[in-house]
Amino acid sequence: MVTLVPQTPGGARAVARCDALGVAPYSDMEGSLYRGYLTPAFAAAQEALGGWMAEAGMTTRRDPAANLIGRYEGADPSAPALLIGSHLDSVRDAGRYDGPLGIMLGVEAVAALHVADRRMPFPIEVIAFGDEEGSRFPAAMLTSRAVAGTLDAGALEMADGDGVTLADALHAYRHASEGWHLGPQGDRVSPEMPASAGMTDYLSAAHAQALAYLEAHIEQGPVLEAEGLAVGTVTGIAAQLRYQAKVTGMAGHAGTTSMPLRRDALAGAAEMMLAIEAIARDDASDLVATVGRIEAMPGAANVIPGSVGFTIDIRSGDAERRDRGAEAILARLSAIAEIRGLAFSATLIHDLPASPCDPALMDLMDAAVADVGHRPFRLVSGAGHDAMVMAALCPTAMLFIRCRDGVSHNPAEHVDPADADVALNAMLGFIDRLGARFADA
Amino acid sequence: MVTLVPQTPGGARAVARCDALGVAPYSDMEGSLYRGYLTPAFAAAQEALGGWMAEAGMTTRRDPAANLIGRYEGADPSAPALLIGSHLDSVRDAGRYDGPLGIMLGVEAVAALHVADRRMPFPIEVIAFGDEEGSRFPAAMLTSRAVAGTLDAGALEMADGDGVTLADALHAYRHASEGWHLGPQGDRVSPEMPASAGMTDYLSAAHAQALAYLEAHIEQGPVLEAEGLAVGTVTGIAAQLRYQAKVTGMAGHAGTTSMPLRRDALAGAAEMMLAIEAIARDDASDLVATVGRIEAMPGAANVIPGSVGFTIDIRSGDAERRDRGAEAILARLSAIAEIRGLAFSATLIHDLPASPCDPALMDLMDAAVADVGHRPFRLVSGAGHDAMVMAALCPTAMLFIRCRDGVSHNPAEHVDPADADVALNAMLGFIDRLGARFADA
Repeated sequence: MVTLVPQTPGGARAVARCDALGVAPYSDMEGSLYRGYLTPAFAAAQEALGGWMAEAGMTTRRDPAANLIGRYEGADPSAPALLIGSHLDSVRDAGRYDGPLGIMLGVEAVAALHVADRRMPFPIEVIAFGDEEGSRFPAAMLTSRAVAGTLDAGALEMADGDGVTLADALHAYRHASEGWHLGPQGDRVSPEMPASAGMTDYLSAAHAQALAYLEAHIEQGPVLEAEGLAVGTVTGIAAQLRYQAKVTGMAGHAGTTSMPLRRDALAGAAEMMLAIEAIARDDASDLVATVGRIEAMPGAANVIPGSVGFTIDIRSGDAERRDRGAEAILARLSAIAEIRGLAFSATLIHDLPASPCDPALMDLMDAAVADVGHRPFRLVSGAGHDAMVMAALCPTAMLFIRCRDGVSHNPAEHVDPADADVALNAMLGFIDRLGARFADA
Repeated sequence: MVTLVPQTPGGARAVARCDALGVAPYSDMEGSLYRGYLTPAFAAAQEALGGWMAEAGMTTRRDPAANLIGRYEGADPSAPALLIGSHLDSVRDAGRYDGPLGIMLGVEAVAALHVADRRMPFPIEVIAFGDEEGSRFPAAMLTSRAVAGTLDAGALEMADGDGVTLADALHAYRHASEGWHLGPQGDRVSPEMPASAGMTDYLSAAHAQALAYLEAHIEQGPVLEAEGLAVGTVTGIAAQLRYQAKVTGMAGHAGTTSMPLRRDALAGAAEMMLAIEAIARDDASDLVATVGRIEAMPGAANVIPGSVGFTIDIRSGDAERRDRGAEAILARLSAIAEIRGLAFSATLIHDLPASPCDPALMDLMDAAVADVGHRPFRLVSGAGHDAMVMAALCPTAMLFIRCRDGVSHNPAEHVDPADADVALNAMLGFIDRLGARFADA
């Protein structure tokens, strides 16, 4: 097995293109990066990306959800496509790589095949998803859900902060841009057609079978850096539970209530927070548990808190481990409350299932990483990605790329171009091995 | 030694009078109790109180700070007076006993002497202080400071929430009420005289020597109830330190940062809060330490807190014990921060010295409590009272009265009338013993 293009400079170019998209006209905000779904900056970024896709030998189209898709034909055009994607939108005051880097690396992978005049047995489609961050409408991963066929048509009625519905925003965007297709069927969308019609048809249409979905993304965490590794194979998106906990004791004067007579809700919550940390840490696995928000009432320096509310976020790549962790945490918290004479309740507010990556594709990725001279390493993704949505359509694979200090959603987000090159070469090796497996099948 | 009036019903009447003052026109708030300094409700309460003082055989006057003072003449009118006082103002949404009960019990003590046609060797003055709670102006204990001679004349310029200065409020109040005197000198104040002039003269005048200051007050804490006691002798007002603490770690994604790589400011703060509680509890003394206010930033359920701010309030009747406690707490907190790789700072924001009650007067009070068949018990006051201000003028004594569940600053504040009777009889015994001591001197 040899890599297709042993030392491509494409990784560095992918990083440079993300940098280029980090400023006006590709940002909707002066002085920092914000690229909302279907905004002027979003249109400008699609325009630039469409050019890069064409240079890499791809034909481009927009689907009814305004995803920009570049297609590199396979030896067998009727074969199910390998999809490579990530998102073009960003949070406010964003870094430059969260999302775009995965798209740019997809373009570079195709460019490398194109330069080598090489066709895979299957088509490759690079998808720039429009909304992953919930950057404009009050829901995330809208456009990958449209592609995967899991978006409810009612979503068209949701409105942004200015009261503009998704249907109206899509309609306006369609009038202002070109190259629209009705995705799976390939029929061209008329600009006069109401966006809702095209979108509703799209959502109800049977989506083409895809061979697999591959997403490269910055880790947004510190694990790869701590391991000294450029890239890692993602085992899946963690299963997540979130609770709102409430501890009730007895408020009292901080000066007049002796220590033995206190039923201090915050001291109780403190013991609970330490227990949460200890249970997750002692599991010595991918289990993580976090108290991110806390409020003590009445919240005066001279009053013993009578009640405390806090959130508990529990995640693991393995839903059973997550559930065991949550069970242990809640049991321990109830015990602490009982010993201290406090009331305790925990209300479940989120329960997101795990989205495991495909085991066979993980093996391909590990092998591809090893081929380019790096130690294969697997890690779970604690954050959500379009891949978790695409898992409804086809097997998924993800490759994480080291980012400095684990910082993301922040202008200080940084990726070493050399790491992006490692990722690109691993992706090319993965595509090559997938081609070989496809030929064998 | 016999008590002057073995079973007076005065305690119950004192409680009933507090209840009567708990509603309109004695409250400035519809449906709950708020009596601000120099407000219409305050004037109405002074009016009612003046009548009760007169019934008890006292002459009444207002001093330039609008304190209402009832005087019961002694066998020697030139002897220094025993002052018995507490405050007539209240917090918002207050209970009915915090303040007024001490005044009403003073009136009842004099009434008992009056009924028995008895004069003590010294005059008794019952003082209803105008402002103890900081109920209207941004400072507390304004009017006891005026009496004790420790109020800076600049205080006249401070303004309430509506921009009315203390000088203007006093001036308006003087025009609307009668019986004003220039306190120590006894000269009558002309209503036309600017309030500031009278007040400034008052503040700069040499105040008459007082024999002692006695204040009965609800405990506002749960200690007496836990001891099964109606009353307790107060050893003094606790010395207090208050800090604003800050813990800085590293914010991170709750899903992507594995447990060993975290520098969670809130988990660190939790360990610190438990240490604060343990150090105060393990001291097994009157040392108390409280974290009443906490804020975790950025405060999102899916973000590991990068920084946490919280208050630390440390009190003890003994300043050295308080300081030892604070030193132990700060050292432990710094050690916790260092182990966890967090930054820690604590800024001192208050340092109030202890105000011990007079030891000889405490002995008198203990004996008086024993005389009425109750176990003498001593406790520190964690909260501030007018007595701490009056200590600048003369020796002070305080008697705490049990309140249900330790609840105060709350409409649920409750005092058993039988406990108020015990307090009244102890106060009469205290006055009797003070008279005997005065005669011996």
